[in-house]
Amino acid sequence: MFLEKINSPADLKTLEIDELKALAEEMRAYLLEVLSEHPGHFAPNFGTIELAIALHTIYDTPRDKLIWDIGHQAYPHKLLTGRREAFPTIRQSGGISGFLSRAESEYDVFGAGHSSTSIAAALGIATARDLINETYKVVAIIGDGGLTGGMAFEALNAAGDFRNDMLVILNDNNMSISATVGAFSKHFHKVTSSPQYNFLRSSVKEFMNMISEDAKQIARKIEASLKVGTLFEEFGFRYFGPLDGNDLEALIPVLTGIRNLTGPILLHVVTEKGRGYAPAEADPVGFYSVSGPFNLETGKTTKPKPATPSYTEVFSQTVIALAKRDTRIVGVTAAMPGGTGLDKFAEVFPSRCFDIGLAEQCAVTFAGGLAAQGMRPIAAIYSTFLQRSYDQVLHDVCIQNLPVIFALDRAGLVGADGPTHHGVFDLAYLRSLPNMVVMAPKDENELQSMVKTALVYEGGPIAFRYPRGTGVGVKMALELQPLPIGKSEILREGEDVLVLAIGNRVYPALEAAQTLADSGISATVINARFVKPLDTETIVPLAESIGKVITIEDGVVMGGFGSAVLEALAAADVTNVQVTNLGIPDEFIEHGDVQHLYALCQCDANAIARAAKMMV
Amino acid sequence: MFLEKINSPADLKTLEIDELKALAEEMRAYLLEVLSEHPGHFAPNFGTIELAIALHTIYDTPRDKLIWDIGHQAYPHKLLTGRREAFPTIRQSGGISGFLSRAESEYDVFGAGHSSTSIAAALGIATARDLINETYKVVAIIGDGGLTGGMAFEALNAAGDFRNDMLVILNDNNMSISATVGAFSKHFHKVTSSPQYNFLRSSVKEFMNMISEDAKQIARKIEASLKVGTLFEEFGFRYFGPLDGNDLEALIPVLTGIRNLTGPILLHVVTEKGRGYAPAEADPVGFYSVSGPFNLETGKTTKPKPATPSYTEVFSQTVIALAKRDTRIVGVTAAMPGGTGLDKFAEVFPSRCFDIGLAEQCAVTFAGGLAAQGMRPIAAIYSTFLQRSYDQVLHDVCIQNLPVIFALDRAGLVGADGPTHHGVFDLAYLRSLPNMVVMAPKDENELQSMVKTALVYEGGPIAFRYPRGTGVGVKMALELQPLPIGKSEILREGEDVLVLAIGNRVYPALEAAQTLADSGISATVINARFVKPLDTETIVPLAESIGKVITIEDGVVMGGFGSAVLEALAAADVTNVQVTNLGIPDEFIEHGDVQHLYALCQCDANAIARAAKMMV
Repeated sequence: MFLEKINSPADLKTLEIDELKALAEEMRAYLLEVLSEHPGHFAPNFGTIELAIALHTIYDTPRDKLIWDIGHQAYPHKLLTGRREAFPTIRQSGGISGFLSRAESEYDVFGAGHSSTSIAAALGIATARDLINETYKVVAIIGDGGLTGGMAFEALNAAGDFRNDMLVILNDNNMSISATVGAFSKHFHKVTSSPQYNFLRSSVKEFMNMISEDAKQIARKIEASLKVGTLFEEFGFRYFGPLDGNDLEALIPVLTGIRNLTGPILLHVVTEKGRGYAPAEADPVGFYSVSGPFNLETGKTTKPKPATPSYTEVFSQTVIALAKRDTRIVGVTAAMPGGTGLDKFAEVFPSRCFDIGLAEQCAVTFAGGLAAQGMRPIAAIYSTFLQRSYDQVLHDVCIQNLPVIFALDRAGLVGADGPTHHGVFDLAYLRSLPNMVVMAPKDENELQSMVKTALVYEGGPIAFRYPRGTGVGVKMALELQPLPIGKSEILREGEDVLVLAIGNRVYPALEAAQTLADSGISATVINARFVKPLDTETIVPLAESIGKVITIEDGVVMGGFGSAVLEALAAADVTNVQVTNLGIPDEFIEHGDVQHLYALCQCDANAIARAAKMMV
Repeated sequence: MFLEKINSPADLKTLEIDELKALAEEMRAYLLEVLSEHPGHFAPNFGTIELAIALHTIYDTPRDKLIWDIGHQAYPHKLLTGRREAFPTIRQSGGISGFLSRAESEYDVFGAGHSSTSIAAALGIATARDLINETYKVVAIIGDGGLTGGMAFEALNAAGDFRNDMLVILNDNNMSISATVGAFSKHFHKVTSSPQYNFLRSSVKEFMNMISEDAKQIARKIEASLKVGTLFEEFGFRYFGPLDGNDLEALIPVLTGIRNLTGPILLHVVTEKGRGYAPAEADPVGFYSVSGPFNLETGKTTKPKPATPSYTEVFSQTVIALAKRDTRIVGVTAAMPGGTGLDKFAEVFPSRCFDIGLAEQCAVTFAGGLAAQGMRPIAAIYSTFLQRSYDQVLHDVCIQNLPVIFALDRAGLVGADGPTHHGVFDLAYLRSLPNMVVMAPKDENELQSMVKTALVYEGGPIAFRYPRGTGVGVKMALELQPLPIGKSEILREGEDVLVLAIGNRVYPALEAAQTLADSGISATVINARFVKPLDTETIVPLAESIGKVITIEDGVVMGGFGSAVLEALAAADVTNVQVTNLGIPDEFIEHGDVQHLYALCQCDANAIARAAKMMV
């Protein structure tokens, strides 16, 4: 047993290669044991075990800096850097993070969660090192999926220009979250496996023996230019690979060999997602992450499927149903067909669904182009990832008032994925954009109506955002009616306090109203539905007559829905109204159980009831 | 005279090649005539005259779709598409836009202003075309500078994968706004001009004559692989070029030839910025844009240099002065060394200034990496371009609370550049980010203090944003004191109304207070200095005691500074205060004279005085 003795990377340095291999298998078993009980990212971590071992063996971490892209594949790195015992707490309240975090460990050099940032961060770190004459090594590890994000190319381009010593490891598993899309990736997988490539390479070798020295030099250039690494060489990187990234006997000597090379180096390793666990090897997309306990032998989840559909499923089914009657409806995803439910749409309409890669910027402008020609594109992007395309939403869609539909899944607090993934900024950043309509449904039935509303609306861009997980369990309407744009819904009437709620905070508002009724406080509860345009016609007079208002939202208070209500009251010259804004406070919220986090944020039914009692 | 007869591209079709050449010279003369009188983008447009003529001659526009990246090089396109007569109104109130605008012309297929969007938009348009079985052609024209923006690569990657028929023209002038940076660009310019490359190509040709058919085939592959186009071929594009893009005799047959090719095609043309005007050919960076009348013979501006320094100059000088005493201070720019004033910093500290290319995402995360290692990076980025890196500011800087300094030039309304360039969203989108400090100076002397404040502050990210153009003309302090974080400044005291102003709206507030005093209304005027943290200690009690508040900001009202004031009053449980929020309304503001635009937006001294009179 080696794993139990590895308390820091220093403990790796004394192990022989066979012991490191045994350690890899122990890590595999431990990951499997923990992750079959607890939800988390799965398959990517089974591919990076040997890489993490090799890097921490060869490099002097944390003095040398390893920068993992995203961090969903960094569990082996965590196991080797003092977090083995804490590992079963991963992604739970108070436990370790499922991504990288500078606050958690000095080995987590640069935090992540979103993709494609590692090369830029590594370049900054290498530049700082060289400015102050330090000598540590800098290594970025990025997947082939992460490489489809534009900022990875921006950083390759800058790094090849600046020429600081740094190593970029391309962890190539021919699959980002689902299959990697994009021409470049396809190209390089095709090239290495094609008989033509192998013929060319062997022909070049024959040439070499036949021809003169001058010609040999040319032939060497030729050979170099046939490598899959040409692209990286054009960016000024020296290229090595491809190498089996699950083979410690290959990794250790190569990493040792290139450790002291100067300038920007790219090492291309090929790893296998789910490596060593047959069900995950067979279905790496299904095992990208696991959502709860599963049977180790079959790989099948032992968590019963909830009776209530998820918001994602409702979105997906509604779009499919509506797309049958309108051929202009097309889907756009940024490498998240499964997560957004567009995979089901693509099954029914394969020619009408477009996966752009981990490239939200391109996805949004691409959708703008589609809309400019009369299509009805639905850009289905997680709330947190739309942050990547803030400028494209503003510059390419809103300024031109193009009718792009934004379906933002994972809005609000998402729970276990933590601060990089909470979708709490969208209401604030979208509502300040002219021409944009912003909705959030109180439940899965209202989500259906909002999908319909968005598809009927052709006046410009329109967004609806909805939470992760299962719906509330309400009855689903069979006939969908579009909602009137900018109209709220009064759910309960009372005289003492007005509760204005949006999205998944509507039911907590109703619950609070019930609690308050028991204490003799009567509340009006409004489901705002629209953050923009805000239903000032309904809200302002009620606020004025009741005089005490509580707003609640599953987003940041600063600049969010509650702030819109305050603006509306000020614009209508209404004074004498007391307003309490509940929502996500001005801090980053850690990972943990969603209900627990909402309680911590004073953003639940209890908080509403408390606030109402204080006011009345 | 041909130009005066070109009312639409149809009029080009009848012209012979020599007539087209004459037209090009007439267009050059006309551009020179107009732009020597009126400010505008200059050198890029002198490079694209032949390209615009050739494209509109060969293609059937507007049925065929030309998508120009950014649009700062699209003046020749405007001249040929019905805007010749209106051309002298360019960038002026009520005149034509300096960029592309769908609202302005059906020939402007997809609006732009920011870089690197054209390929994504073209791909969306080509995809829509193919879905509905239309047959028009789609052409994106992008500069080598635009190609350093990550989303251009995202789109190349997707286009190579999707394989719709489309042409991307790489307009390569070896210079984006200043010299193009980035390894890739350097590589391809080096390759085409190196004797080695030419030797290799000629050797390959000799080979061809000497060797067998099989080997010839290999040799052809070899030759292909030596082309500068390899990168594009790896993305799945068929590559043609490089071609002299200022030579109509080369352009017309090549465009005709590739017009009917299928799949994604890349044509690489080399053009010369400033072509045909000697002073601009000699100094294309200086002539990137012209800011007013200049002498045609010498190229020297005839506009007297203002006695007052610009905000940019003050920023630049202050950073240089402070950087002499702190070696940790480094500058980061995204292809805007001149525009941000970091060019002067780079002259003094060449090893401490980093130009990342038109790649704001990479710039911000790179700055995060620098900050993580103890440097004091100043990311100097125009307000409107920081929108590109919203997620990097949030995910890479704010979540990790890294002390990156954001110097946002061109904040507020920028005037002639119009809706894509107004920096009016920054206060709203930055203040909702936890850990961020957000400042705006009332004048150039306060800007100095804010630079100092930002560099002294090490608690996390801090931003200061300041307008385009010259300062107010105030006396500059010789000793810089950091401002206390989150403290405002009371500039004038009165009892009837409280005016809370930020940034360049502070002087209009003082002016209004003076006007109001003449009408017997006394105003307290506060320079807020900090949008976040807001000085609630000062503001709230004054608001409560005065009871009438006007907020004014050079940013959007929705979610902006005024909204922060409303939140603060609500949080402090202050009612009975009447608040009017002045700022940029919820619509996109066109180009035009800045003072005129502020007046239109009800965001000037008159608007304050009016609002105060209404309230009192």
